[in-house]
Amino acid sequence: MSDADDKSYAEVNQEALYRIFTLPEAPDSTLSRIEKDLSENLLGFLGDHIVAKEKPLQDIERDFEKASIPEDPQFVSDHTEFLLEKLVAHSVHTASPKFIGHMTSALPYFLMPLAKLMVGLNQNLVKIETSKAFTPLERNVIGMLHHLVYQRESSFYNRWMHSAQHSLGAFCSGGTIANMTALWVARNRLLKPDGDFAGIAAEGLAAGLAHYNYKRLVILVSERGHYSLSKAADVLGIGRKNLVAVATDANNRIKVDALKQACQNVREQGGEVLSIVGVAGTTETGHIDPLADMADIAEQLGIHFHVDAAWGGATLLSNDYRHLLNGIERADSVTIDAHKQMYVPMGAGLVLFKDPAMVKAIEHHAEYIIRQGSKDLGSHTMEGSRPGMAMMVFSAMHVIGRRGYELLINNSLEKARYFSHLIAEQDDFEVITEPELCLLTYRFVPRRVKQALAEANAEQVERLTPHLNALTRYIQKRQRESGRSFVSRTKLTPEHYHRVPTVVFRVVLANPLTTHDMLREIIEEQREIAEKATSLRGALHTEMRELGLIRDA
Amino acid sequence: MSDADDKSYAEVNQEALYRIFTLPEAPDSTLSRIEKDLSENLLGFLGDHIVAKEKPLQDIERDFEKASIPEDPQFVSDHTEFLLEKLVAHSVHTASPKFIGHMTSALPYFLMPLAKLMVGLNQNLVKIETSKAFTPLERNVIGMLHHLVYQRESSFYNRWMHSAQHSLGAFCSGGTIANMTALWVARNRLLKPDGDFAGIAAEGLAAGLAHYNYKRLVILVSERGHYSLSKAADVLGIGRKNLVAVATDANNRIKVDALKQACQNVREQGGEVLSIVGVAGTTETGHIDPLADMADIAEQLGIHFHVDAAWGGATLLSNDYRHLLNGIERADSVTIDAHKQMYVPMGAGLVLFKDPAMVKAIEHHAEYIIRQGSKDLGSHTMEGSRPGMAMMVFSAMHVIGRRGYELLINNSLEKARYFSHLIAEQDDFEVITEPELCLLTYRFVPRRVKQALAEANAEQVERLTPHLNALTRYIQKRQRESGRSFVSRTKLTPEHYHRVPTVVFRVVLANPLTTHDMLREIIEEQREIAEKATSLRGALHTEMRELGLIRDA
Repeated sequence: MSDADDKSYAEVNQEALYRIFTLPEAPDSTLSRIEKDLSENLLGFLGDHIVAKEKPLQDIERDFEKASIPEDPQFVSDHTEFLLEKLVAHSVHTASPKFIGHMTSALPYFLMPLAKLMVGLNQNLVKIETSKAFTPLERNVIGMLHHLVYQRESSFYNRWMHSAQHSLGAFCSGGTIANMTALWVARNRLLKPDGDFAGIAAEGLAAGLAHYNYKRLVILVSERGHYSLSKAADVLGIGRKNLVAVATDANNRIKVDALKQACQNVREQGGEVLSIVGVAGTTETGHIDPLADMADIAEQLGIHFHVDAAWGGATLLSNDYRHLLNGIERADSVTIDAHKQMYVPMGAGLVLFKDPAMVKAIEHHAEYIIRQGSKDLGSHTMEGSRPGMAMMVFSAMHVIGRRGYELLINNSLEKARYFSHLIAEQDDFEVITEPELCLLTYRFVPRRVKQALAEANAEQVERLTPHLNALTRYIQKRQRESGRSFVSRTKLTPEHYHRVPTVVFRVVLANPLTTHDMLREIIEEQREIAEKATSLRGALHTEMRELGLIRDA
Repeated sequence: MSDADDKSYAEVNQEALYRIFTLPEAPDSTLSRIEKDLSENLLGFLGDHIVAKEKPLQDIERDFEKASIPEDPQFVSDHTEFLLEKLVAHSVHTASPKFIGHMTSALPYFLMPLAKLMVGLNQNLVKIETSKAFTPLERNVIGMLHHLVYQRESSFYNRWMHSAQHSLGAFCSGGTIANMTALWVARNRLLKPDGDFAGIAAEGLAAGLAHYNYKRLVILVSERGHYSLSKAADVLGIGRKNLVAVATDANNRIKVDALKQACQNVREQGGEVLSIVGVAGTTETGHIDPLADMADIAEQLGIHFHVDAAWGGATLLSNDYRHLLNGIERADSVTIDAHKQMYVPMGAGLVLFKDPAMVKAIEHHAEYIIRQGSKDLGSHTMEGSRPGMAMMVFSAMHVIGRRGYELLINNSLEKARYFSHLIAEQDDFEVITEPELCLLTYRFVPRRVKQALAEANAEQVERLTPHLNALTRYIQKRQRESGRSFVSRTKLTPEHYHRVPTVVFRVVLANPLTTHDMLREIIEEQREIAEKATSLRGALHTEMRELGLIRDA
């Protein structure tokens, strides 16, 4: 479709336009060939089409700089060529087993044709009129994950799973919206209608605080809590300052005494705790808070207990490891991301509610949809129109099965422990946080520095660490740019290094295709890069000498 | 994968599990056949597999009632059969040209293989590390839609489109999150940092109100505003009562004088207006507020002006009709849903900001991603992890082109006018709201009642309307259940019927495949259903007689 002269444009193109809605691409077209390649050999396709060598971002931006929508239509095949060359080539090979820096892994093959089915059906889950069977399906998916967490008896699910006035949770675009929804519910339940006060949902936060005579609301989470909680505190009007970070122990778990004290402090100062948030799998270190102890405090003090298990929640699928999350079944609300360790594509977060009536606090209606008494899912979600992503989770749970997931999770955890041992064996690497799940952090430390650090005092650590941080940053960046493998990095404050901010490599070993050999190659590659970092190592050496930790010949 | 005895389960299934990540379905498998059908003849597939006759929801729910995750894996082909029979068969044929009750229409074919590509790549747009070229692409898409609305010069886009510290908007899962994001930005800019006050984002809403000495914040929108605004008022802590509905004229457009008065009232009472919201395409009637007049008021009074053009925004693509949205280019923020009249799959909302620095008000960072200075899109979005949906919008804009969209939009509007004329010609139907865009509302009214209504007084209208409402509800429900066609319904308060709540059919004529013949068939079918509604018509007849509007022989 193009090159039609202006006069007859409408006539000429009416037909062409109609065709894009009615006729598929020819079997030998570029797009059909891509589709076939994707179907037959996804990893091959990605390996062939995504270029390894990093192109500078500024150069990529030049391919995406025309701000006006093109006047004339482009042939699908031409456009597809453009996508292959300019977009796919410079995207990230998230499915690669050597890209272990993200929570995104390879996906099972059957989800790709299902994704096409989902798009072809193009249901809208906000209301039953545009989703029909997808509504019960989504309620079922929420029910299954609710059962995974809370393990209630079947009569419970028979009664509530499909009830119009109730919800066992909400399907969301991701964990951020899930966390936000949980805290929205908690906020609205805390400042609920009472006498003349119509409730915060109607009257607003300031009126709610005034009615209940609270100076402020506070959300308490460990200092390792996800940044989405701070965003939620902003959006919900609580204020980021009122998301109070509680200290963690040497294993990045919230200090229970400090949490209890923090709750008491808030109340003594005239505030109220909106929610205690437990983290089940911190984003940076993968550790799990002592959920049962936190549940005790929440129960004693009558505070909403939310667990952010966006990443670690899938561990519940393994009977061997679900005990790590003991206490989660006492949470009032729980966030799980199916697009993380449940191996479904991006866009599948869930929040679950222990009590199916909790969502009353955020219920809303309209005249044309989500009418009172309807089963429209939209009356209890933060989002409006939503795609049928729940099908992907439903299918994955059926095709993989609980025991299939158990194998995947167990393998990931074992692989992480293997990698941790492997690192510990090296005389020029060190583990910074041990894996509790399949996430660990580590860094490269030249042999002599490693020996020195073992006995270094706070001041020495403080002076050496910036050099090591620079080296870690350098290695991580170079390795990413070379395109063969990828680890991410973050900054921690390890207790055994006197809480000095320490940059570390961070790996998530969730991809079932990652092998032990690949892990060995990754650290070998890092060592090679480190060897070339002569000036950074020189500076480190100088610092070591100035600290009297080495004496040169 | 199943039937492995417990002992050797892990060994047996390790291999099977590995296979689902590495081997596609066989070409003759059920799923591969479905995929082929979808590719070759989507409408045929949907027509064949979605059953016409409605199955009672309770029966569908019985297929989705097992709350526990199945222990054992299921063969993909078995699961696919289940999906076909239990899910697809009872989903909604949103692409059908006779389903004109929703904003969801047929999709162009090329988007299906692209959806598969998107899922195969599984990029995460929150950070550049997991999206690379998808980040500039998404910024480009936002830039293109910004240009569509604001038509700034190319130097503007050269400067801001790819700037790390700025954003021309945010890509969202849908219009609700887009509206919420716009009002979040407006709220945070209104209660911005000032002297000792660190700003609402940090200190919370109550502190912000106290600092600026505002009794309350108010959002003003016409009584036809979308329910997502009320939800946003709740989430953001403003309170639903503080979303004040302003009266509309006979054409469902906000009364500008009433709006101005409302602003003044809020201020006189010690409050402040957080935002004036213009509606460009109301969900229920498709009308567009007088945006330029609203912009005048917002400018005069220094108030944030947001335009909710989730549905109508695509009209800007037609040079023939973009004047209907005159004034939108003066809005501080604009919501557009690409999954409505831009014909991309569910899950593509956008909010645009006139000023690229506005997003500073909601900026956030973390240690491991979206670090200060990075180009990670996540630092300016309400959501966290997000899929590469922007590719769908990008591709649709290129393959359809501005002029292609113009044809689609013009055709839709002309079709709506045709349908409106067709209805007006009938002696037993009446148009309730004329189409300004491609949306109109109407109802069935028996011939004699229609004649009587033309001269009825308020009391007579009030007594007749409930009967007509029941009849409209009945027809809409029966027609939906019969499965051949679908119109939606809503409740309006038409001025010419003395604002008596009136139930109406609501149609959206955006599907390019809908023909004039189909529209005739739809009203013919409605007439046939109406004829069978003997008891409802009997009650209406009795009411007519009691009102002295007819005398039986």
